[in-house]
Amino acid sequence: MSQNITLSLQDVRDLSLSVLTQNGYSPQHAQAITDVIYACQLDDCHSHGLFRLFMCVETMRSGQVDGHATPTLTEPGPAVVKADAHKGISLLALNEAMPKLIEKAKTQGIAALAVNNCFHFSALWPEVEMLSAQGLAGIAMVPSHAWVAPAGGTRGTLGTNPLAFSWPRLGKDPFTFDFATSQFARGEIELYRRAGKALPEGVAIDRNGNPTTDPTAAMEGAMLTFGGYKGSALSIMIELMAGPLIDDLTSIESMAAANGNAGAPYHGEIIIAMNPEMLSGGKVAGNDDRAERLFADIIDQGARLPSQRRYQARSQNLKRNAVEIPAQLYQDILKLKD
Amino acid sequence: MSQNITLSLQDVRDLSLSVLTQNGYSPQHAQAITDVIYACQLDDCHSHGLFRLFMCVETMRSGQVDGHATPTLTEPGPAVVKADAHKGISLLALNEAMPKLIEKAKTQGIAALAVNNCFHFSALWPEVEMLSAQGLAGIAMVPSHAWVAPAGGTRGTLGTNPLAFSWPRLGKDPFTFDFATSQFARGEIELYRRAGKALPEGVAIDRNGNPTTDPTAAMEGAMLTFGGYKGSALSIMIELMAGPLIDDLTSIESMAAANGNAGAPYHGEIIIAMNPEMLSGGKVAGNDDRAERLFADIIDQGARLPSQRRYQARSQNLKRNAVEIPAQLYQDILKLKD
Repeated sequence: MSQNITLSLQDVRDLSLSVLTQNGYSPQHAQAITDVIYACQLDDCHSHGLFRLFMCVETMRSGQVDGHATPTLTEPGPAVVKADAHKGISLLALNEAMPKLIEKAKTQGIAALAVNNCFHFSALWPEVEMLSAQGLAGIAMVPSHAWVAPAGGTRGTLGTNPLAFSWPRLGKDPFTFDFATSQFARGEIELYRRAGKALPEGVAIDRNGNPTTDPTAAMEGAMLTFGGYKGSALSIMIELMAGPLIDDLTSIESMAAANGNAGAPYHGEIIIAMNPEMLSGGKVAGNDDRAERLFADIIDQGARLPSQRRYQARSQNLKRNAVEIPAQLYQDILKLKD
Repeated sequence: MSQNITLSLQDVRDLSLSVLTQNGYSPQHAQAITDVIYACQLDDCHSHGLFRLFMCVETMRSGQVDGHATPTLTEPGPAVVKADAHKGISLLALNEAMPKLIEKAKTQGIAALAVNNCFHFSALWPEVEMLSAQGLAGIAMVPSHAWVAPAGGTRGTLGTNPLAFSWPRLGKDPFTFDFATSQFARGEIELYRRAGKALPEGVAIDRNGNPTTDPTAAMEGAMLTFGGYKGSALSIMIELMAGPLIDDLTSIESMAAANGNAGAPYHGEIIIAMNPEMLSGGKVAGNDDRAERLFADIIDQGARLPSQRRYQARSQNLKRNAVEIPAQLYQDILKLKD
């Protein structure tokens, strides 16, 4: 039943910029946010495309985010850059720090960027793909809100804690993944609830810590991590690396800081960039061949590499210079400009 | 039915050293290997304790490993150290490079160690705990042999690819995990086979790529990763980071290099060390409190932190200055000295 409309790529950018600037974001912030909303929409990554404008506006209207914050950079060590977002959305801080991270990874071999004191709503893959586009391998992690129980636990402690990785492939789209360490995304559970469908086993527990397949009970209880105790351990690592390691909030603290307000969570982010040129001792081409043989063996048996659907969508949408989005979504976004 | 015997801690060291030196390992290699065999046995981590002497001897007897190899270190970048094991067991190279990795992490903020051209048989937790003992956070990864199918695949391409992480806790044992990204360890499947028990669902596929619970069919087919497509993506990341990134073999290449020989696999390893002092902007104590609140919230709900059983065993075994091992294992190890 849902009808789609076609927006030109320029329309996507213009729509995002106008909504954001009319809702309290400075031109600089609006541009940084629009860049990733555009990148996601271009790849038909609908959950992180124009749809995210609602979260950006909600975060602003609840009085949490500073739409005019000026990020500041510090370099506490030769291989570390810290970007303080000063309660702005993470992306302007990230953009300003990224050239420094890239330069450090290229000259030091490995480097880390900590973005602090930021509101965060975006997919991580555009960030690690900024690194692979420069011939670097990249890892990114963020906490979120304490909606996810640790293995063996009874209540939310961990965030959905996504992990993203991108690997540069010579002359090809990179190998990239970006997944939540929760079994499901929170939005997926909401979709089951609206559809009146039962959840699969192993996705959630109720408020008493018992397994449940009822989406409403799951929203009141907690989600589970993917992969049992291993996924849980990985999620705790992400809490530590994107939290206490970089002097920023855990998912418990981020949820407390929000104080019931909706919108993007407030916390930190860590990005690690690695230079294959230096780590391989100058043998990038031969090792690119080696990685390609690995990928070929995976594809040859009918398995998929992550992100391929995204790259196909990107290619098609660039060719026709347009994307399709639900007509209702477009109408709802226009209302954000009222 | 199995009887145990008690060995003093000194007996554990002496037994390991004598077996290794009588089987072609130089005193330096024997000492480096013994240090981790001892550390694992002390923690009742039986699969990686004295039991691993069989693999060390097997790798030597099959003529693969150089028991007298002298590792060489290079520093291709300020935050990178590479240790070439020159076909020795990884551990002597690791030990020689570790002070350099620690120094680099402390002065640069983040640093990476690549160990190349090594035979690898050891648990990764002792290595990342060398870092957390110095107040650093550490991550380690290795490939292995291509026994594990990617998600959606039909045959072995990936290794069991363990991931280890350690986080320093002020005045406490660290937070450490070390898990295979395969759903089961290969040895576990062998134990099911010997016991004539069916495997759980989701652990393995047969040689035709179909799901199986038959351990023999699983050994002829392939194991699966933990956590479905997310675990599979993580395993591919480990292949890339501990392989092509550092100019070393993938699990496919490592298996081909072994050419059917048993023993430890031959490949590389990557270890990343991070300095909380620098990444937190000098706020280690406050962030240690923050991490402890996270751990307390996990424990408070009845969930366990990883490695706690190991630390309890360590404490008990240190107190009585001895460990228990199966009498049969001891007798079998003595035969390695014949």
